[in-house]
Amino acid sequence: MARKEKLRLGAFLMIPGHHVASWRYEHSNAEGVLDYGFYRQAAKTAERGKFDMVFLADGYAVHERFPQALEQAVQVRLEPLTLLSALAADTEHVGLAGTVSTTYNEPFHVARKFASLDYISEGRAAWNVVTSNTEDEARNFSRDKHLLHELRYERAEEFVDVVRRLWDGWEDGALLADKEGARFADRSKIHRTDHQGKWFQVQGPLNVARPPQGHPVVIQAGASEPGKELAARTAEVIFTAWQTLEEAQAFYRDVKGRLARYGRQPADLKIMPGVFPIIGRTEEEAREKKARFEELIPVEAGVALLSGLISFDLSPYPVDGPLPQLPQLEQVNGGKSRFQLLQSLADREGLTIRQLYQRVAGARGHREILGTPTQIADQLQEWFENGAADGFNIMPPYLPGGLEDFVDLVVPELQRRGLFRTEYEGKTLRDRLGLRRPDNGFAAKPAGSSATAG
Amino acid sequence: MARKEKLRLGAFLMIPGHHVASWRYEHSNAEGVLDYGFYRQAAKTAERGKFDMVFLADGYAVHERFPQALEQAVQVRLEPLTLLSALAADTEHVGLAGTVSTTYNEPFHVARKFASLDYISEGRAAWNVVTSNTEDEARNFSRDKHLLHELRYERAEEFVDVVRRLWDGWEDGALLADKEGARFADRSKIHRTDHQGKWFQVQGPLNVARPPQGHPVVIQAGASEPGKELAARTAEVIFTAWQTLEEAQAFYRDVKGRLARYGRQPADLKIMPGVFPIIGRTEEEAREKKARFEELIPVEAGVALLSGLISFDLSPYPVDGPLPQLPQLEQVNGGKSRFQLLQSLADREGLTIRQLYQRVAGARGHREILGTPTQIADQLQEWFENGAADGFNIMPPYLPGGLEDFVDLVVPELQRRGLFRTEYEGKTLRDRLGLRRPDNGFAAKPAGSSATAG
Repeated sequence: MARKEKLRLGAFLMIPGHHVASWRYEHSNAEGVLDYGFYRQAAKTAERGKFDMVFLADGYAVHERFPQALEQAVQVRLEPLTLLSALAADTEHVGLAGTVSTTYNEPFHVARKFASLDYISEGRAAWNVVTSNTEDEARNFSRDKHLLHELRYERAEEFVDVVRRLWDGWEDGALLADKEGARFADRSKIHRTDHQGKWFQVQGPLNVARPPQGHPVVIQAGASEPGKELAARTAEVIFTAWQTLEEAQAFYRDVKGRLARYGRQPADLKIMPGVFPIIGRTEEEAREKKARFEELIPVEAGVALLSGLISFDLSPYPVDGPLPQLPQLEQVNGGKSRFQLLQSLADREGLTIRQLYQRVAGARGHREILGTPTQIADQLQEWFENGAADGFNIMPPYLPGGLEDFVDLVVPELQRRGLFRTEYEGKTLRDRLGLRRPDNGFAAKPAGSSATAG
Repeated sequence: MARKEKLRLGAFLMIPGHHVASWRYEHSNAEGVLDYGFYRQAAKTAERGKFDMVFLADGYAVHERFPQALEQAVQVRLEPLTLLSALAADTEHVGLAGTVSTTYNEPFHVARKFASLDYISEGRAAWNVVTSNTEDEARNFSRDKHLLHELRYERAEEFVDVVRRLWDGWEDGALLADKEGARFADRSKIHRTDHQGKWFQVQGPLNVARPPQGHPVVIQAGASEPGKELAARTAEVIFTAWQTLEEAQAFYRDVKGRLARYGRQPADLKIMPGVFPIIGRTEEEAREKKARFEELIPVEAGVALLSGLISFDLSPYPVDGPLPQLPQLEQVNGGKSRFQLLQSLADREGLTIRQLYQRVAGARGHREILGTPTQIADQLQEWFENGAADGFNIMPPYLPGGLEDFVDLVVPELQRRGLFRTEYEGKTLRDRLGLRRPDNGFAAKPAGSSATAG
């Protein structure tokens, strides 16, 4: 069925590419991983392609899961908030989404930094809320152990609530700058946060006024049961990972179905699965590219990637043997949904450890789509028109070329089909995503204020 | 006596000006306090004037010290790290100094953000280390009470040490990006932090390689006894507040004299007092400007400013009476040196509360210099050539005009006298400040590596 609204696109900027061996690929810019100019070029390419946003993942540790980890994996990256702020100055339209963990940060700082980015970018900021999932990160913040999965989500929920209250502390119009009347601000429109919770006590108000978007867009990625519930209550975009149309449809129905209970409409939450596109002028060229990437994966790096994705150390096991007996899902204290996804993939197809890491070394659990620009567009269209996605987070295998191919070859095809914008509409990221500007929790609600845009 | 080296200049960008009533002044941009374009313009003006750096103060709270505080004071500002990152993209030469407190942050995040800013700006980042001084800030971070002065400095010292170790974790040259040899990095040049201290346990290494400057420049502002000792051990620039040449000389001698005990040279630390310049084409015009600012101060805002500076609530006392009996210095848990400075100023000149707040409403405890461009230059030259300062942090009363006047009228005069650069030298902020690039604490030290530049 044809959809009236357009699909949305995010550009997942993992440098020098989403494939774990991207840094070895002859056309990737492996020298430029800490070079701001590399990011600027990629963001400008995404903007040229009319992407809704660029998206930066993040983590707070260097991992040494295997002896060669420090040699064979790219473990350095610029910090998202500083990087996105620079990109705000160097771009005009594209949204700027950054990952910040609720487990190792303070709500006041997070609210302020995203508010600040929203001012600097004139309404293009988005926060991808994650809860972190490794012990290595805990050990960089004076803790012995990573917080348990349930507690992380409990903390995350309270954290997001506090951040939203901080963003609402100054009503729209609270700043007067009235020189004659000696009133810089209208105190009747300034509200303390006064939060007394289990995890945080925050007096407020924030020392930045309400951001241009009201709230920067809130993105969430967890697909576990508490993750879905948190998303249904608080997220405006979900970034998710599915292999098959059926799984993605089931997830889409599930999460959209949870919204009503929080007084929300289906349009208030956009579901954007990650896709890993391998693009060739012919299908054969795409397959050759894929094979080339696979042969570039150092064995230890492949095993380590897989171990990280399932939060279980596979290095003691034969690489050409099957997956060993894994712990029960309840015992997993990492990304639970990713664990489940990979275990069922291995079981279903009887894959060895090597085959499984080759399978995930590019998409890392997300959907791989391969072929000509037409075939790539077909695969996106199928999910978009069949209740599986409102848009996609595009994960180029390598940069800059992987994103340039998508922008120059696939975007025009999506535009020809009427599936994607040809010009930026509106002004803010919310306008582009078709998300309404949130009401202020402190302000008196005008009647009929629940209308949604887009 | 003439000095061989040039003086250094920082532009203290308090928006819309350093004077507490700047937002009421007819030529200030009071509407633009959260407008990034206003900051961009100011930073470009500083760069046009060949300033070493722009400097952003910061705090983590809105204060309600008096009933009208929310109405009559500018309490919102953009967050420094996001703002400086955007300015990095919009400028080429000027250094970028931001204030971040060690009391309400984590060393891993601070090390990473400044490392990231240093990459984005290609070696122009500086961190102004503060310890915060209000209860309002504590209450935004789940704490009832502000940490005691001594404990704040103890924490700060450990914090800065950990940050430096994190910056050193990847030696220069650790990133190889060797595609053929399958070595992205050289693990023999990557070092864990392994810090186990009283305040922090940090495993490391950082997930950003060593910054372009080795370490971003470390600035410090405290002038109390522990503040001076921390500065002598760790700071590369001191931002300080003195009223008289004699005080400034004594401080200069004192701090420079402490360096040897930490194996440092006098040139390793630049002392840059704050100055608040009121510039007129004639001295009379400058005096009229000053009087105009004074009449614009709302009484409550003046009393509140003063109360904040001395960490003591003056609102119950008659504004045209003397300062009441203040607590002993030992009981003060705010900025101790500022407290001392203002108390002795009031005592020395027998000032009322109103007279004292008028005196501090502009310079806020820093040195006020007033007059024609020639007179302003004279006053800077006197301190620079008489062992009181290596440079100055310029605090324009209002923006954008106050900085434009300094750049267009005073800078050319300083250049004519041979006191200030006419073109940017070197590439990094360290090059401009005449600070050497620090050795890496983990790397084998080359012989004779203690040479200083500048």
